Amino acid sequence: MRISKFVAPEIIFGNNTIQQAADACMRLGAKKVFIVSDLGVAQAGWLERVMDCCRLAGLPFATFMDIATNPRDTDVVNGCTSFIENECDAVIGVGGGSALDAAKAIAVLAANGGTIRDYEGVDKIEKPLPPMVMIATTAGSGSEVSQFSVITDSQRKKKMTIISKTLVPDIAIIDPYTLITKDSALTASTGLDVLTHAIESYVSIAATPLTDVQAKSALSLVSAHLRPSVASRTNAEAKEAMAMASLQAGLAFSNAILGAAHAISHAIGGMSPVPHGEINAILLPHVMDFNFIAAPGRFGQIAECMGIDTRVLTQREAGNAAIRFVQELSIDIGTPQRLSDLGITDSVIHSICLTALEDACMITNPRDMTLEQAKNLLARAL
Amino acid sequence: MRISKFVAPEIIFGNNTIQQAADACMRLGAKKVFIVSDLGVAQAGWLERVMDCCRLAGLPFATFMDIATNPRDTDVVNGCTSFIENECDAVIGVGGGSALDAAKAIAVLAANGGTIRDYEGVDKIEKPLPPMVMIATTAGSGSEVSQFSVITDSQRKKKMTIISKTLVPDIAIIDPYTLITKDSALTASTGLDVLTHAIESYVSIAATPLTDVQAKSALSLVSAHLRPSVASRTNAEAKEAMAMASLQAGLAFSNAILGAAHAISHAIGGMSPVPHGEINAILLPHVMDFNFIAAPGRFGQIAECMGIDTRVLTQREAGNAAIRFVQELSIDIGTPQRLSDLGITDSVIHSICLTALEDACMITNPRDMTLEQAKNLLARAL
Repeated sequence: MRISKFVAPEIIFGNNTIQQAADACMRLGAKKVFIVSDLGVAQAGWLERVMDCCRLAGLPFATFMDIATNPRDTDVVNGCTSFIENECDAVIGVGGGSALDAAKAIAVLAANGGTIRDYEGVDKIEKPLPPMVMIATTAGSGSEVSQFSVITDSQRKKKMTIISKTLVPDIAIIDPYTLITKDSALTASTGLDVLTHAIESYVSIAATPLTDVQAKSALSLVSAHLRPSVASRTNAEAKEAMAMASLQAGLAFSNAILGAAHAISHAIGGMSPVPHGEINAILLPHVMDFNFIAAPGRFGQIAECMGIDTRVLTQREAGNAAIRFVQELSIDIGTPQRLSDLGITDSVIHSICLTALEDACMITNPRDMTLEQAKNLLARAL
Repeated sequence: MRISKFVAPEIIFGNNTIQQAADACMRLGAKKVFIVSDLGVAQAGWLERVMDCCRLAGLPFATFMDIATNPRDTDVVNGCTSFIENECDAVIGVGGGSALDAAKAIAVLAANGGTIRDYEGVDKIEKPLPPMVMIATTAGSGSEVSQFSVITDSQRKKKMTIISKTLVPDIAIIDPYTLITKDSALTASTGLDVLTHAIESYVSIAATPLTDVQAKSALSLVSAHLRPSVASRTNAEAKEAMAMASLQAGLAFSNAILGAAHAISHAIGGMSPVPHGEINAILLPHVMDFNFIAAPGRFGQIAECMGIDTRVLTQREAGNAAIRFVQELSIDIGTPQRLSDLGITDSVIHSICLTALEDACMITNPRDMTLEQAKNLLARAL
């Protein structure tokens, strides 16, 4: 029997919970908080909401928003300098994966020094981080509950995956109401990221009964609610379901880790600034097809969570139905179907594959992947 | 939309994980640890295992085992005195609900002073507790992950329910291998406690999607594995499943709280030292029958988790099938069927009901209960 480990932050989920940000920080002993966000979130008004609640609570703060869509090591260094100059002792992240991953990485540097590259891989962070409250305003990254931070190495042009228990925030706030300001394209790409988290963590070799229940629930919720969520910004039921799906998928992949789709996606994302969820969604059907033989029964369960009646299907038919479900979903919500649509060309496949095979997420992929197999997979997705 | 909150400790689950106890404490900064256990656990050899691993790690410790089956306020005071005299700075609990609840209550007094009665109810603990590592050696209480500690008030002869986020341990270790030393009677009564946790938390008015997935998984596991677990001490598959069920039910009820069965059970347990799980199991079918109208759909889901095909049943038939399932299970594993079997008489019903209606667990019961209804329910269970 394998040993199962599971870590989660304290979770607060519900409409308007964003206004609990200051209270959450003060419970953790914060005297001055460093609020990390990005321009899009600020323009949507959510940063102001957090600042307001700090003002109301009498909690001093500094803000930092200078973050790329795929946050870079240089952004993190600048953030850390600002954190120290402003004499902050706690971090709030507010936004999607970019803001939250950057906020966590700033906390790492502030407490541990060095460069963010020193912490790439699993369990490299030694000193405890300042108190962290993460507020998710996109249903996607799961970063508000995860032990992950993904930062782009601007010199090596690759995404570094940093995995450590200390990256789990102290308190995660998920406010579905904030999803009202996401446009349909962002809703689609981040929603497909949730789908990928759920499926990859469910077939991961590190999956446990504790992650399985979260992954399956997330998968059912995305399958039922992503289409209506993309269709309407004001469908409160769909927004709530997608926020919960993102949270549960986050709990699953934080503890079971991910697989080949994320490993390859990180390699591509390091080179070109395309939305992470779109790359994942293009890769996912091909990765599922490749991984099928590693866990045929699990792919049958995936099909069932999608609402497919598998009783009269063979294992392979159920697996194919699950793959088709992913393809149809991404077509319906209008995301790109091929890597070439994102500007990826044949010439970079070799280098993408070399980087992907070294990614921490590849370790938990259920089927071993050779360089040749990776290249074939990418050729099919091109 | 209600706000969902969820808190859990870091979880380590697996055979022989008991030997990670010292390492877990040292990660939390412990210099000298206070190990709380009870005589049965010590006789089974598990306390010695924990002491051994502390010796091996060079972590000094003191031990405390003077705890009643239903731990009393006086036990807690003695434990706290010993904790202070021995200059400990962290707590390990090793055992079932008695040892773990006592260990938590000792930590409360050590850090907050006063008497344990000061902390009865919800959120009364103000100061942070010393680091706590809880090792579950019975699949039952869920105390290793919960925000609960239940302590008997020896003067008022009642069980006090203390509920606070600070009671969630820092690290929970669940070692299914330790279940090998539990006899069949203890396996039966603690297993029925797990069943009660799962069902009461699933129909609780504080249930959320985060607790629902845990409760349903726990219910499926207990339904399939409690009988074989009672049948054989060495059935490793059944032990692992019951340990996971207990953990998941613990995560569910810690966050969704419980209901009338636990409220009444606490009232009875304060008066007479009968096993908590046996009282719960006697009360549970009657409480389910009473609560049915509050959540007919949920009782249908409960029946499905038990493996009952509900497709051709009415809601009431499905609810009845779930109730019958509980009764048949407790008959099969040989636990008492009536409160009179435990020595409870008609003369104490009124006073039990008065106490039960004041219990913190009654607040989340899905159906309001009057004194008259409580008395009728107990009369049927007598």
